[in-house]
Amino acid sequence: MASRSKRIVIIGGIASGPAAAAKAKRIDPTAEVIIYEKGPHVSLGVCELPYLLTGEIPNPDTLIIQTPESLKRDKGVLAFPRHRVEAIFPSRRLIEVRSLGEGISREERYDKLIIASGCRAKTLNEIPTGLDNVFHLKTLSEAIALKTFIHERRPKRVCIVGAGFVGIEAAEAFRIMGLNVDMIFLEERPLPYIDDEGRRIVERILTDNGITLHANQSVLSTTTSGKRLLAVRTSQREIEADVFLIAIGFLPNVEFARAAGIRIGQDGGILTDQRQMTNIDGIYAAGDCTEIRDISTRKTMMMPFASLAYRTARVAGENAAGGSASFKGAVPNSILHVFGYEIAQCGVTVASLKERGFTPVHAHVLAQSRVSFMPGSEPMFVSMTADARSRVILNANIIAKEHAAQRANVAALAIRKHMTIDEFLESDFVYTPRSAPMIDPLHVCARKLQLKSGS
Amino acid sequence: MASRSKRIVIIGGIASGPAAAAKAKRIDPTAEVIIYEKGPHVSLGVCELPYLLTGEIPNPDTLIIQTPESLKRDKGVLAFPRHRVEAIFPSRRLIEVRSLGEGISREERYDKLIIASGCRAKTLNEIPTGLDNVFHLKTLSEAIALKTFIHERRPKRVCIVGAGFVGIEAAEAFRIMGLNVDMIFLEERPLPYIDDEGRRIVERILTDNGITLHANQSVLSTTTSGKRLLAVRTSQREIEADVFLIAIGFLPNVEFARAAGIRIGQDGGILTDQRQMTNIDGIYAAGDCTEIRDISTRKTMMMPFASLAYRTARVAGENAAGGSASFKGAVPNSILHVFGYEIAQCGVTVASLKERGFTPVHAHVLAQSRVSFMPGSEPMFVSMTADARSRVILNANIIAKEHAAQRANVAALAIRKHMTIDEFLESDFVYTPRSAPMIDPLHVCARKLQLKSGS
Repeated sequence: MASRSKRIVIIGGIASGPAAAAKAKRIDPTAEVIIYEKGPHVSLGVCELPYLLTGEIPNPDTLIIQTPESLKRDKGVLAFPRHRVEAIFPSRRLIEVRSLGEGISREERYDKLIIASGCRAKTLNEIPTGLDNVFHLKTLSEAIALKTFIHERRPKRVCIVGAGFVGIEAAEAFRIMGLNVDMIFLEERPLPYIDDEGRRIVERILTDNGITLHANQSVLSTTTSGKRLLAVRTSQREIEADVFLIAIGFLPNVEFARAAGIRIGQDGGILTDQRQMTNIDGIYAAGDCTEIRDISTRKTMMMPFASLAYRTARVAGENAAGGSASFKGAVPNSILHVFGYEIAQCGVTVASLKERGFTPVHAHVLAQSRVSFMPGSEPMFVSMTADARSRVILNANIIAKEHAAQRANVAALAIRKHMTIDEFLESDFVYTPRSAPMIDPLHVCARKLQLKSGS
Repeated sequence: MASRSKRIVIIGGIASGPAAAAKAKRIDPTAEVIIYEKGPHVSLGVCELPYLLTGEIPNPDTLIIQTPESLKRDKGVLAFPRHRVEAIFPSRRLIEVRSLGEGISREERYDKLIIASGCRAKTLNEIPTGLDNVFHLKTLSEAIALKTFIHERRPKRVCIVGAGFVGIEAAEAFRIMGLNVDMIFLEERPLPYIDDEGRRIVERILTDNGITLHANQSVLSTTTSGKRLLAVRTSQREIEADVFLIAIGFLPNVEFARAAGIRIGQDGGILTDQRQMTNIDGIYAAGDCTEIRDISTRKTMMMPFASLAYRTARVAGENAAGGSASFKGAVPNSILHVFGYEIAQCGVTVASLKERGFTPVHAHVLAQSRVSFMPGSEPMFVSMTADARSRVILNANIIAKEHAAQRANVAALAIRKHMTIDEFLESDFVYTPRSAPMIDPLHVCARKLQLKSGS
């Protein structure tokens, strides 16, 4: 019997799937590497969807990074879009995959399996399905449908449910397209992933840009006419709109994995070890369908960021192909760039830290992005949190019209290296009047934190 | 006999002097804190001098951060401008100070002394003194004199000798003021503090902006007419100009310290311990007149950066006042912002590393500042160096029209923490299409370095 090449099957082809596939094929060029993707496209830029709406990206095709043809030609990877994996049978090393085009299911064998099934937009039970003017913004098809709707129907008012990343990015896009924007959200202030002072600034940025905020509310009931949603009712008011966007978060696509006995974490994502292997031998997982270990708290949590999808995918791909890579965890480090502001959040919130047994000490400052009297200098908000006992830095929020993103990367490195406030104050920042103030805003905040924490 | 308050005398009042004074007074409010400054001003912004020429700072008074009056009122510090300290007598704890206004010298006692005498522009022996159209750009008076000369005499051509920070910043200012600029320098390419690929880019930025470069040359002789310098001659050519700027570096002001037996390092700066104390008990030093320990190589060297002047001054001030602070060294981390580019250098050059016994492995890449197809994305040059044996990162150069400065701060933190290439590749960077590409340029370069260093 001829020796058979190893077959690595990857479930999901948007972001981490193709990255894992390419890495696996590079590690073991003899392996057969196959991607099944339920949607119509593989290898997509998803973070860019709001910029299709704003027009910063005029052509949706720009977001299609690879096609099945280019993946085959450039990477030697076989990709099958419109193929949904419906079940895994680990004991037989088989999957059941359904060709959505043909409407037939078949079983396929694998030697190693990588689950890179990502996540999907959460739906709102209170809103009926099948309405024409209710959208999500998670897939390319949804973005194109939303854009087409706006161009064809010329709506005047949009109601967004949710005030996270997608809701806020979409709010800006709608404003650019000339719509009035109402925003309904459960929390007291928008952007619950950051600490309270930062949320106050985000709140002001949104209201300053003409967005009407409806805090502490959720949709309780709806008024529809045929296939059109006319209004939603919350505990406080009725909000009419011509178009609705539901942006209340993501759910990892793990149902088929759970059914196969793969362990799922508290936040609903697949749990893996440092090699990105699940509890079932030979089955790996990567990207937005997995939970990632937070470096500071050691807890696993959802961190649906493209950069982490990529990094975990490379580890899963390498290991599935017989290599030995590891991913030890991450500092959640993300940024929202809206209405001319960079809003960066690094580490988990003070509220989460308390839940996890830390005693946070917290400080915030308003500094300047450059020497204050130089042209272009902008106010820069920084907040930082450390543990009162160990003095180790645990989070940072930075909001400014410039230079916030990269400062979050400095803070993330300090958090990753478990630096204390005092050690961080010994670190080196560049200074030139045109680019940065002499005492960096991160140091200004760290010094305040040092004083507050009693040294 | 009544108990006498401690007297802390500080030599030099531009940057580190006032910082040390303020810190000392805060630590020991009963101390008498006195600054002697030989020039007419105390507490000046010196890094901003080029922007007086460009007009970004219209009013020179903006650069006077404190006056003797405000220092007394706000900080309780006595400052005496136009007072030059001419000698230290450590055995008697006395200094000899000359009032330049009155033309008289006197002795003053000190309990603790802080030398914060800074540095001065190097002069060029080949150029006669006393010429009307030859300038340096180190003091506020020099900047004002140069600006006045240009406004009154309307020169058309300037010749700059030197291609370091000051020479290049001045070159841009002269271009903004409409002058033709010739630049003479000893090295093959401008900006010797960075590695060669970076220098090639700087060379192109300068020539693209109309500056005529004369590399590998020095001034050998001059042609003068009365008090006017008409031309300088190098080994290769004669260069005529209407005004000349000498910007060939700085010399620490340490002659009086050396005469008092204070130990001076190989680069000409005062040597201190981690408490910023010199070899003489009770005499501290801080700022540009001192050498600073480089974190990577453990050697002391000149790092004439305002941020380090400030940090060392605070340590000297605290310790002189009876506190216990330490300064363990720095990663040289600096930036030049000219012609719309941020040119950042972090760590010492490959050439210096070789001299100091390292076996450098080096990589460079051209990446993008944002997702490449997003509006505003700019090419970003990154080079990085690691030690071939330990794989520890030793330097980084970053050049781009945006976001280079803050990336140098990330690199500086990695260097300070002695991170290996491999560990650095596990670090966390924010990603959003409008602000940063999915794989950070620093990671792109680190990955290339990883491949080159054989892993």
